[in-house]
Amino acid sequence: MMAENLPGALMTSEIREQPEVVERFLKTESDRARTLADRWRRKPPRFIFIAARGTSDHAALYGKYLFEVRNGIPVGMAAPSIATVYRADVHVEGALFIGISQSGQAADVIAVLEQARRGGADTLAITNAADSPLAAAAQETILLHAGPERSVAATKTFTTSLAALGVLSAALDGREELIESLRRVPDVLRGVLRDEPRLRGKCERFRYLEECVVLGRGFNLGTALELALKFRETCNVRAQSFASPDFMHGPIAIIEKGYPVIAIANRGAALASVLDVVANARTRGAETVVIGNAPEALQSADIAFPIALDEELPEEVSPFPAVVVGQILACALSVMKGLDPDRPRGLNKVTVTR
Amino acid sequence: MMAENLPGALMTSEIREQPEVVERFLKTESDRARTLADRWRRKPPRFIFIAARGTSDHAALYGKYLFEVRNGIPVGMAAPSIATVYRADVHVEGALFIGISQSGQAADVIAVLEQARRGGADTLAITNAADSPLAAAAQETILLHAGPERSVAATKTFTTSLAALGVLSAALDGREELIESLRRVPDVLRGVLRDEPRLRGKCERFRYLEECVVLGRGFNLGTALELALKFRETCNVRAQSFASPDFMHGPIAIIEKGYPVIAIANRGAALASVLDVVANARTRGAETVVIGNAPEALQSADIAFPIALDEELPEEVSPFPAVVVGQILACALSVMKGLDPDRPRGLNKVTVTR
Repeated sequence: MMAENLPGALMTSEIREQPEVVERFLKTESDRARTLADRWRRKPPRFIFIAARGTSDHAALYGKYLFEVRNGIPVGMAAPSIATVYRADVHVEGALFIGISQSGQAADVIAVLEQARRGGADTLAITNAADSPLAAAAQETILLHAGPERSVAATKTFTTSLAALGVLSAALDGREELIESLRRVPDVLRGVLRDEPRLRGKCERFRYLEECVVLGRGFNLGTALELALKFRETCNVRAQSFASPDFMHGPIAIIEKGYPVIAIANRGAALASVLDVVANARTRGAETVVIGNAPEALQSADIAFPIALDEELPEEVSPFPAVVVGQILACALSVMKGLDPDRPRGLNKVTVTR
Repeated sequence: MMAENLPGALMTSEIREQPEVVERFLKTESDRARTLADRWRRKPPRFIFIAARGTSDHAALYGKYLFEVRNGIPVGMAAPSIATVYRADVHVEGALFIGISQSGQAADVIAVLEQARRGGADTLAITNAADSPLAAAAQETILLHAGPERSVAATKTFTTSLAALGVLSAALDGREELIESLRRVPDVLRGVLRDEPRLRGKCERFRYLEECVVLGRGFNLGTALELALKFRETCNVRAQSFASPDFMHGPIAIIEKGYPVIAIANRGAALASVLDVVANARTRGAETVVIGNAPEALQSADIAFPIALDEELPEEVSPFPAVVVGQILACALSVMKGLDPDRPRGLNKVTVTR
């Protein structure tokens, strides 16, 4: 165990907790989630809206793909200002509103759930804090059981929020194959963490990185957004993230020789699109960095961060190891740049917005 | 008229066409939109999903605020990959799917509408091209009548798409006050364009700008996203855009002394939140640049681009003059940097994604 006052000690230890935390979450909440989803399995919500900010918003995006692709339920992202700024009376009866906030303190997420509940929607909180105002505002709660998260850079509450959305998605249709895949995640993460020293070593190359883009698509779009946020907040790297097709619509103009393009490339339906844009970036002279388990992407990359797998990992759970690789890189790079990822410049753990 | 082969000639002339183009659109399509919205006024869609990419996606975001705040209809953004990559069967009966694409060629937007129509949703295309595959795929079409857009950087089709969404929002509830406000837009834009030489002159200061963030909220969040995209694609400026509260969740860490923060600050309900984050940025040493009509924001800004108004302009239509100011700045800056905004590096007018 590193001394707590060393830069990155908290983030490092919370990254390493993730196999146990996800395992504990699945053991503790899977059955409860099935019970609370009973009514929605019988009568699916006419749509789902998710309210979240920052890292939790990237988990929400993963939820959009899960609920639409697996459950056929349309998912929108709540714009909190609709409730807090415009106080609009939106017709939400029969919908399910999910609020995600690790601290349970996000005032505007709470406001969205309160307003939705008054409007006749069902409301569900996903939070790490049982006694929080978010849990109090929602009719139902799925608790993350991740233990206190002390690093400002969220890690274990992100992966556990993904697991919570996965458990809910499985409960909504009663099909168990996603639960089976989620149960494999802790071991997959242990595999990533065994590789941690080598991953950290490969970060040397990025010591003077000042800017990059991070690309993903589908289930791994949220992974790309989350990794870019980690780079920004812990490494002061100007990282932008895009869905691979959106990158083609304008932002790709930024590429010049040697420009770093990081792609999340996992096996699955979204891979072809990511391969396309990486190939295009390469012809423009980009330095391509690939994180994932797709051999065809890894082989052609300038720098590859392969996620070794004994067997095929379903795309639905591929964000777990990919984001943990990204967390390790961001944490290592931050320390290498002389920063402290546990205390990023000018940030607090809980952000209150009005 | 500038010679067409001068850098920025096309973008400049299309920026200047906007008062007439918006006026023509309102004259030509307002009544038709009311007729086609008849059935939705009687029986509102249970939700609206909008599919779009790039600039059109920023118009879509404006639509989300319009339809939720004015019409109380929940709005989600369609993730095209749900239809094109995952081919998921989402329950969309009774919903309205809107596809926005100036060229009408965006393959994934078309795929979203086709899939939604098969699933029992109503479908509406907003496009500048009557004979396009998007218009053919949708049951209904609102045409932009903007004339050919020849600059790669979209301008007049963006503002006219906003007008199309406004006309539809008014038609959905039959309240005319938004139409009245929209009818004032052409004159407001003429006022902005009279100021064009002075706006261009004020761009000098940004000759060596390499990076910035652009902030907005609510109705003007799309404005901020669109301005950042223009800066990226025409000026090669690393511009990121955020909703003001999201900027507080991490990205604000990037501010150091002199870092340029551009805020869209128009009068209205969202102003307080923008003022908050601008004040916070200023205490961190940012150089603050304000575009808008809110005196309290303009007065405290380091650089102000005021939108002069004879009378109060409703927040719902404030994005029109704000984005035109942004277009003028992006176009002028691009030329000043020795680039050609009509032919940005590595971009084509129509982007095909799979």
